[in-house]
Amino acid sequence: MYRLISQLYPICRSITGDGLRQTLRILQTHIPLEMREVPTGTQVFDWTVPKEWNIRDAYVKNSKGERVIDFGESNLHVVNYSIPVQRRISLSELKEHLFAIPERPDWIPYRTSYYKETWGFCLSQRQLEALAEDEYEINIDSTLKDGHLTYGEYFLPGETPNEVLISCHACHPSLCNDNLSGIALGVWLAKHLRGLPRHCSYRFLFIPGTIGAITWLALNEEKLPRIKHGLVLSGVGDAGKLHYKKSRQGSEEIDRTAAHVLKHSGNPYELLEFSPYGYDERQYCSPGINLAVGRLSRTPHGTFPEYHTSADNLEFVYPDKLGESFAVCLKILFVLENNGAFVNVSPKCEPQLGKRGLYRMIGGQSDAGVNEMAMLWVLNLSDGSHSLLDIAERSGIRFESIHKAANALQEHHLLREKFEFVPTAAG
Amino acid sequence: MYRLISQLYPICRSITGDGLRQTLRILQTHIPLEMREVPTGTQVFDWTVPKEWNIRDAYVKNSKGERVIDFGESNLHVVNYSIPVQRRISLSELKEHLFAIPERPDWIPYRTSYYKETWGFCLSQRQLEALAEDEYEINIDSTLKDGHLTYGEYFLPGETPNEVLISCHACHPSLCNDNLSGIALGVWLAKHLRGLPRHCSYRFLFIPGTIGAITWLALNEEKLPRIKHGLVLSGVGDAGKLHYKKSRQGSEEIDRTAAHVLKHSGNPYELLEFSPYGYDERQYCSPGINLAVGRLSRTPHGTFPEYHTSADNLEFVYPDKLGESFAVCLKILFVLENNGAFVNVSPKCEPQLGKRGLYRMIGGQSDAGVNEMAMLWVLNLSDGSHSLLDIAERSGIRFESIHKAANALQEHHLLREKFEFVPTAAG
Amino acid sequence: MYRLISQLYPICRSITGDGLRQTLRILQTHIPLEMREVPTGTQVFDWTVPKEWNIRDAYVKNSKGERVIDFGESNLHVVNYSIPVQRRISLSELKEHLFAIPERPDWIPYRTSYYKETWGFCLSQRQLEALAEDEYEINIDSTLKDGHLTYGEYFLPGETPNEVLISCHACHPSLCNDNLSGIALGVWLAKHLRGLPRHCSYRFLFIPGTIGAITWLALNEEKLPRIKHGLVLSGVGDAGKLHYKKSRQGSEEIDRTAAHVLKHSGNPYELLEFSPYGYDERQYCSPGINLAVGRLSRTPHGTFPEYHTSADNLEFVYPDKLGESFAVCLKILFVLENNGAFVNVSPKCEPQLGKRGLYRMIGGQSDAGVNEMAMLWVLNLSDGSHSLLDIAERSGIRFESIHKAANALQEHHLLREKFEFVPTAAG
Repeated sequence: MYRLISQLYPICRSITGDGLRQTLRILQTHIPLEMREVPTGTQVFDWTVPKEWNIRDAYVKNSKGERVIDFGESNLHVVNYSIPVQRRISLSELKEHLFAIPERPDWIPYRTSYYKETWGFCLSQRQLEALAEDEYEINIDSTLKDGHLTYGEYFLPGETPNEVLISCHACHPSLCNDNLSGIALGVWLAKHLRGLPRHCSYRFLFIPGTIGAITWLALNEEKLPRIKHGLVLSGVGDAGKLHYKKSRQGSEEIDRTAAHVLKHSGNPYELLEFSPYGYDERQYCSPGINLAVGRLSRTPHGTFPEYHTSADNLEFVYPDKLGESFAVCLKILFVLENNGAFVNVSPKCEPQLGKRGLYRMIGGQSDAGVNEMAMLWVLNLSDGSHSLLDIAERSGIRFESIHKAANALQEHHLLREKFEFVPTAAG
Repeated sequence: MYRLISQLYPICRSITGDGLRQTLRILQTHIPLEMREVPTGTQVFDWTVPKEWNIRDAYVKNSKGERVIDFGESNLHVVNYSIPVQRRISLSELKEHLFAIPERPDWIPYRTSYYKETWGFCLSQRQLEALAEDEYEINIDSTLKDGHLTYGEYFLPGETPNEVLISCHACHPSLCNDNLSGIALGVWLAKHLRGLPRHCSYRFLFIPGTIGAITWLALNEEKLPRIKHGLVLSGVGDAGKLHYKKSRQGSEEIDRTAAHVLKHSGNPYELLEFSPYGYDERQYCSPGINLAVGRLSRTPHGTFPEYHTSADNLEFVYPDKLGESFAVCLKILFVLENNGAFVNVSPKCEPQLGKRGLYRMIGGQSDAGVNEMAMLWVLNLSDGSHSLLDIAERSGIRFESIHKAANALQEHHLLREKFEFVPTAAG
Repeated sequence: MYRLISQLYPICRSITGDGLRQTLRILQTHIPLEMREVPTGTQVFDWTVPKEWNIRDAYVKNSKGERVIDFGESNLHVVNYSIPVQRRISLSELKEHLFAIPERPDWIPYRTSYYKETWGFCLSQRQLEALAEDEYEINIDSTLKDGHLTYGEYFLPGETPNEVLISCHACHPSLCNDNLSGIALGVWLAKHLRGLPRHCSYRFLFIPGTIGAITWLALNEEKLPRIKHGLVLSGVGDAGKLHYKKSRQGSEEIDRTAAHVLKHSGNPYELLEFSPYGYDERQYCSPGINLAVGRLSRTPHGTFPEYHTSADNLEFVYPDKLGESFAVCLKILFVLENNGAFVNVSPKCEPQLGKRGLYRMIGGQSDAGVNEMAMLWVLNLSDGSHSLLDIAERSGIRFESIHKAANALQEHHLLREKFEFVPTAAG
């Protein structure tokens, strides 16, 4: 994952344009992602797909012809979506178009202006302070014209049409945690799941933030009822503890699953209530969409100083943290895959586990092994109204043990799956 | 408010009689209060309107003719509702009719005997101890005969028939916090609301405690369904923190509103669970009446030593505390007036606030202003099943900001009021 | 109770056999217990009534003919349900059949092997370490053959068919807390209740653990709907604080009653959530039985080192602790007997308690006695949807006071019992 991040890091991405396409093509070397193109001007709910932005070069030269700000050094130096400009201007006029962070004198901020046509440069506070009175040559060699919004979609069918949505924004230029880490994690999950039998179907989206999610939702409304659970992945590679942000409803299966997995992960974590700010969960959890989509992050956006600056670089993400995020995602998906409801076929008193080899033979010891407890809990609560996750939550036993106990009991015909009555067409 | 309290302080009020009438006439100089008279003997639910009590003078004279206890000095000296008596008695017989507070040797207690015909004097412990063996002349120049129970009612109509009930007891003699403070606050609220546009209608009651509330309820049962919210105001002028006592149901709109306003008030406060003891909320919240009426007080009755003694005087109430109580009441009424439910007319994904000038133009900053958050919350939860107060509670943002955001969104046609289907007469 | 425990202590009980019969016959000297015999081989749900086990003697002799392990000294020395065996074996072979507790070198463990035919001896770690290389003579003079499972049942009819089940396991040999204490407490409750008028009917079971409960449930399924509440009594004589383990549903009347009584007991206590491990509540709370049965214990099984060892002896139980357990049980039963729902017949405002002599006559004091508060709470919440226990819980007043207040109000015709509409046969 870290290698993929390193490979993607230099590319200047935006919500449209060739940087985004180049990124998706690199992902296609890992998974058979479909690349979709939506034309400028397409109406998507309350929004319109914007013009496509591309940039080749940009700089500010002083009167000696030295590049004092150079897009070649960092693509953060240009305000993303800056219109083309080529002029000579004074320092004071230039300053109206410059952005720096006084408190972090060495960092370049990341700024965008998608929906207001303007231009600007971002630079470190030290660079800013070094600018002398002079006449400066401004050049932004960009284009902003009708084109397409591009996104990548990968659908992995499962035994059932019930879908899990995994969504990552892919519009940020040279920023690693936000969100190359999420992209890499999404790709790795897709690669891993391809090789496994799957109860659920999986849909992976690598999309520009906000407008990409809105575009996908507007063009795919008929698919929404199939999406039963979803995760937005963003900022999953930094050194902080994991944070799961709940869906709008707050107690969906994905919310309870994430809480359960994190509780038993052995690592510190935090659960965040839903709020209508953040990443694309804002769109997935808007009232008219209202999907059961949560968000997995490490340190939440906006709460670490490196956020949206040049300090969110390759040193800010850690391979082992990406690995932990990956492991937690797999455990979450394991629960979603296996969270059935069963019926105890011998519900009057306990069945005699001993005669089936499921129980210690010499009684009277004071310690009951966890597996026996898991079996007893599964038997006790499998009355058709408790899922395995319900049982794991009430018993305090981790889902894997509950699931294993259910399997053992099913093999011994003490448990059967709960079948709902499904009417079928006559004939 | 403090001036009104000072003006009312000397009057000897009771649950009936001229002191009460005189009090209401003074209130009429502030608001067009209607004075109601209910005859002695009127059956009101399980109770009967008692005889009217009036008193001109009362004293205990020693054998030298000195007034050792004198109603003229404090109307608390006579047990309220004492029957007329004129006699000479020994000290020991007198003592059977004397009440003092040994732990507070300088304070005169306040005692009543509304429903048992008896007489008595209250005095300080020091006065009591100074009484020598002697023959005393007792004189209580009172009358207890058929007459009326008097109360004041002021109805302030609003755009809708939905009523807010504001109720204050007005039967205590020279006691300031209990309840001249409540009377003054009720009058000031009425004066203030008269000058404002009102969604709700308001009904102010200045009534004798218990029997007055019972009388009003018994005579106005048909009005009860219109009362949507209510507040009993009592003890709102002392130095203690504000206490809101919940209604019987405990989570009525008035309860949630008071909790929200106090939480955001910046001052210490306490929420009290309902109990069937206290002031007239006992009657409003009896099971067969069951109105959504809470109580606002500062230090609760019975928990401060000055309660029901001569120490509950003009020095025990503070203009600034009355002012804080007034401000909190206004905020509570503001929520009740404005707590509508709205529907996001663009519920699929977020609407594009930027193109409407409702969103910062240069993206990428980490700080989202509170107003934007308020708008995002209102949009996210305005699905027809959340009121603005619901949104304020879930978001943690104060109601005023939520209300302002809703107004802005409504102006931009992103929100509409939730209309219930109201059948109208044909033709 | 302690004397009964002392009398029962030496007997070698098991889940079947003469020790169990002898125990029940001793109980019959206290209460008219019926002794039931269920033949070996009877199918009871998923289980089969096992062969009957009896034992006369057992020992291990060294080559000098000395009894180094002797059933005559303690019946714990033989693994309960050991098959007959008579042999000479080496120390190493013997050791495969020996059980000790290294951490408690002086205690003999208690072990059973009901469903796997084997044999063994239990001994202290000191005894084990003292065994020299030698040829040992093993003799277990037991029988394991078709016979009966025995249990005791005592049904005490009440005014209504609604039953309270009191269940104690009676299968442990010389162990005092587990469960001679429970047996003694059950007997004492039965003796006490016999002499009292009873609203509920009571069913006392003295049964072998697990198989006894399963047998009773399988043979008495038609009686289960009548069982409204139940308590498993076990380990109620040690020095620890009381623990109430909730029923499977967790908020049944018995659960709320036990919590209420313990809260007001003045002694430390703990409430335990249900889990499907423990004593016979496992069977009563299995999903297909699902009775409202909780468990009262002092220190829970398995959490004290003396559990299932020879140290659970007569010194481990205390008469005063048995007494406290008894008192708490009586209070629980008092609530179950008296927890009616009433209707305030004067629900509009408070009724005038004063004119009925139910209220202090001189008003204005700041202290309201508890009894008045209990009356006010009962009047306020007796709207047909609150039981007396509901009122006790919400008011924080102990049930006895609430019950007394309800009685007083009923005598004054302010309250009536809530009658459900009960259809009766025509004619």
